[in-house]
Formats: sequence, C-alpha cells, structure tokens
Amino acid sequence: MKKNLTDSKKNRVVVRVPGTSANCGPGFDCLGLATTIYNYLDLTLIRSGKVVVESVGEGAENIPKGRRNLTWQAVSRFLKAVGKEDEFKGAIIRMKNNVPISRGLGSSSTAIVAGLFAANEIVGAPLNRQELLKLATELEGHPDNVAPALFGGFTVSVMQDGEVQTFSFLPRVKLKLIVAVPDFELSTRLARKVLPRNVSMKDAIFNVSRASMLIAALVEGREDLLPLAFDDALHQPYRKKLVPGMSAVFDAAKSAGALGAAISGAGSCLIAFTTLHSGLEDKISTAMTTAFKSAGVTSKALILDVDRRGAQVVRR
Amino acid sequence: MKKNLTDSKKNRVVVRVPGTSANCGPGFDCLGLATTIYNYLDLTLIRSGKVVVESVGEGAENIPKGRRNLTWQAVSRFLKAVGKEDEFKGAIIRMKNNVPISRGLGSSSTAIVAGLFAANEIVGAPLNRQELLKLATELEGHPDNVAPALFGGFTVSVMQDGEVQTFSFLPRVKLKLIVAVPDFELSTRLARKVLPRNVSMKDAIFNVSRASMLIAALVEGREDLLPLAFDDALHQPYRKKLVPGMSAVFDAAKSAGALGAAISGAGSCLIAFTTLHSGLEDKISTAMTTAFKSAGVTSKALILDVDRRGAQVVRR
Repeated sequence: MKKNLTDSKKNRVVVRVPGTSANCGPGFDCLGLATTIYNYLDLTLIRSGKVVVESVGEGAENIPKGRRNLTWQAVSRFLKAVGKEDEFKGAIIRMKNNVPISRGLGSSSTAIVAGLFAANEIVGAPLNRQELLKLATELEGHPDNVAPALFGGFTVSVMQDGEVQTFSFLPRVKLKLIVAVPDFELSTRLARKVLPRNVSMKDAIFNVSRASMLIAALVEGREDLLPLAFDDALHQPYRKKLVPGMSAVFDAAKSAGALGAAISGAGSCLIAFTTLHSGLEDKISTAMTTAFKSAGVTSKALILDVDRRGAQVVRR
Repeated sequence: MKKNLTDSKKNRVVVRVPGTSANCGPGFDCLGLATTIYNYLDLTLIRSGKVVVESVGEGAENIPKGRRNLTWQAVSRFLKAVGKEDEFKGAIIRMKNNVPISRGLGSSSTAIVAGLFAANEIVGAPLNRQELLKLATELEGHPDNVAPALFGGFTVSVMQDGEVQTFSFLPRVKLKLIVAVPDFELSTRLARKVLPRNVSMKDAIFNVSRASMLIAALVEGREDLLPLAFDDALHQPYRKKLVPGMSAVFDAAKSAGALGAAISGAGSCLIAFTTLHSGLEDKISTAMTTAFKSAGVTSKALILDVDRRGAQVVRR
C-alpha cells in the first residue's frame, strides 16, 4: 500500500523520552535508570530531501541543524534499517528539551531514542523496543542511557558478542531522586579519559558485590540494604577531580538522610537517592546545592521520580 | 539458673548444614548458594575440658581430633562470645559428613557453621543468624560459603568496614545443579595464589554487568536471561590451569543444554545450572564427567537442588 505522502498527519507523531542516569554508583557501564524529566520530539517524515530542525529549551542554541542533527541521524538510520530510505528522504524535527545538556542525564540518548522511536511509530512500528535498542546502542556507542530511555525503570545491560541484551525492572522500593545540576558541562570523552585501564582485583570485587546487592535490594524491595549498595570503587574516585566538591556533596546528601549518592553517568550531575515516604527530598537537595556552593560551584536541584514507561507517544 | 549439667540431653543437639557453592561464575567473592547435600553434627556441650571428636563419611580419616578440630574452634568461639566459656569447657562432637573435602563445596564452612549454630541452639539461641554470620565470617576469613550455609538459598554478601552484610533470597527460577566432583583436591590458598592483583577495567565491567544480570534474572524468574549471566572474566580464566579440562567440561555442559557452568568456589568441583523442568540433568552430568575423562580426570557427578533453609536443627 502506497502511503498518501501529502497527508502529513499520517506521517507525524509527537513522542516524549525520559532523561536517564547511568551507573547508579557501582553499576558502571551496565546499570541505568529513567527519570521523570522529558524531552519532546514532534517528528514529521517528508518525501523531499529537506531536514528542518527547530528546537526550544535546554541547549537550543547549540543543537546542530540539518543533516548533522543527531535526531535526524537516528531517523535516517531507522529508515535504512526498515528499507524506507527512498520513501522518506527528509524530516521536520521540532524539539522541546528539558534535559540539561552534557550533564550526565542522557540528553544525547533522548535525541537518538526519540528519532528512532518516533520514526518507528510513523511507519507502523515494524521494530520492537529490543530491536530499537540495538540501533540506539550502535548510534550511541553504549547502552547505558539509551536502554532506560527506551524501557523506563531500571535497566541492566550486558554486551555479548557485540550485541546488547537488556533487562528492565521497576524497583519495589519507591525512590525519590535528587539531582544536583552544576553550572558546568562535562564531556563523556574527558570523563572516560581519566579512568585507568587496569584496576585492583579488590576494587573489581567491591563493585561486583555492591552492584549485586543494589539489584537484589531494588528488585526485592529491601530498603534496609540500600545504604550498602550505592558505593563505587571503579570510576567515581578517578572522576572526583572533574567535579569539584563531589565528595562533600555525597557526604552532605547522606548526612541529610539519603540512602546513597553517585555521579550521574559521566557527570557533571550528582544524584542522591531517598525513598518516597522519607519526605527528605527538600532537605537533601538543599544540602547538596549548599555543599556544591562551598566548593565554589553554582548548581540547581531537580527532584524527580523514576520514570516507569520509557519512550511514549504523546500525540498522533 | 544453674543448668543441670549431668542432664546431657539438655546440652545436646543434632544439626545439619548444607554444602555450598560460592561465586556462581561472575559473583566472585560475594555470591553463593546452598545445595541439598548435608553434613550432620551431633553436639554435646560438657562441663569438663575434654574434646572428643568422632567422624564418619567424607574425609573422616583426616579430620583433626581434639582442640585443633574446626568445629570445636567454632563452638569455643561462640561460647566466648556469649560468656559461657566457663560453663562448658569441652564437647563431644560427632560428625557425619557427605560434603566432599577441599573440592569447593564449602566443607570447612559447614564445620564452622555447624559448631556455631548447634552451640547457639543448646544455650537457648541468644544470637540470630546475622550475628552467627559475623562469627562464622571471622573464623572462615570470608562470607562466601558460611553465608549460604547459614541462610540457605542464594546469598549476596558485602564487606563494609570489616563487617559482613548478607542478603539471602530464593530464586524464582527453579534450578537443578549438576556438580562434577573430580578425584583431586584443590586448596583455596593455591587457587587464590594464581589470581592477579590487578585486572583490566574491561574485565571488571564484564563481571559487574553479568553478576547484576544474574541476580536480576534469578530474583525476577527470567530464565531466558540466565544464559547471559554465568560467565566470568575475573577468576576462572586464571584457575583454568588448576582444573584440567575445565573449559571442555563447561562447553560439554552447555552443549548438553545447561544454562551456564562455573567453578564451584575455588574448585576443584565444576557446577552447571539447568532448570527443574528441563529434565536435562542426567544428560548434562554425563556430558561433564565424559569431558573430564577426556582430559584424564576421573570424576563423579552429584545432581542437587538449591537448599532453601540453611542450617537446621534435626533432633534435640
């Protein structure tokens, strides 16, 4: 069946994709979670080879227009994957972004996932989320943020023979997330560069045991075990120097009652965890921004929940 | 109240403690499981400073008698911990052992846990299992086997400031365990000596992701994810040379349908995993012993379940 390409309503969809926080302390390069801060994409696929990009919100002034745009690259990759690259040669991309840029909240992953997910919806959803995840991982280079952005909740991802496999789950502990967003960006490339190639066996075991405990405590709803579970020895000690005040912010969050705290992804955001019923989120967020300030860093705090649904269609 | 010390029935208990398998592949030094093979201890605490040890079964000829006996050391440590060392200065220890010695099935942990658990029962159970775990970990040096021996099921243990914290859970996947027991012992000390002090970040992440996936799959009952979850890069590659035929036995088990295979603890046993409903346990056990034989190793196979209860009183 040939689509009526002049009927733009048919070729248009609005989706939202959650910002995400990778690693969660010990789950370096495998654990991630989706949060209730969203980027929106209003996508229209068009026949002509024109790519129009309009954006408002976070980072709007710096988002590449035209074919260099990351969302377009995802759309284009999807169209090739399903053999529709001749049918749709261009797109109108309208973005409304709430997720801070280059802060470790997965903003680039939202751009990729939104493009793939929206284009897939327009052409009748030939791919499922696991298949979209493969394309997203290929585009992003790792599954840490694209997996929770697609699936919602927490995700554990394993790379096996170059393919990603992801398990997503909703924690039985109802969490509140407090994110301190400092006023500086941090590139993932730089945050990777400071990591050593080798680590001690002791530190490796430290993370294996805590990541295992974190998953078990979240899945089984054992809030009492969470204070043991957010510490890390593999990446945060090396990244400390890139985020002034990191240790002080962690200590302040815990002193204010947080279950634990971690760098969000590769930073610069720091994320603390408490329970919904603790009622401590305001106290923790003030403690974190105050500690940042003492280290000379201006920051704002976001108080978020765990997003439970991942990428969603908002309007057709 | 002064106990009637001539009433030996009051000071006697029979307990059973499961053999255990530590690590389960990626969960090096933190994950363990209890199996349905048991050692039995018939313990009588006595007033006189005499320690009598009688044992039958596995390793009976080599088990130290008198005060060097490991079970006595555990009993003695417990009595000191609860301030009863003057009341009971000796013990009659009768053991019936089914767990093979020095094969990676936690036989020394059963001796420690049995002594602590039985003595605790005799004096009215002043300590709970978490408190007994602390003493057991102190005596054994690590929690890997004593934790599942006490709690049953699977256990995740974390060392925090020199203290052990353990989470125990029953997997929602019903597993069958196939253990190939070779005819040679392997000392844990030697198996530790072959490990490097440092490992690559890549291998550390490999295990963090797989241990996370293993816990998630077991707790949530996701059998389909288990084939991803039993691989290890931190210890087994180095221990391969200590267990001739290891890789061949792993491959044979998987070819016969096992979900995965691992060294049991520090070896020499190898353990494979399948589901209760697969009906593959005989096929897998034959494949494993045959592969061992091709490598010149005589072995016998045990087909076991996951013990769900840990240390138990059998008779008072």
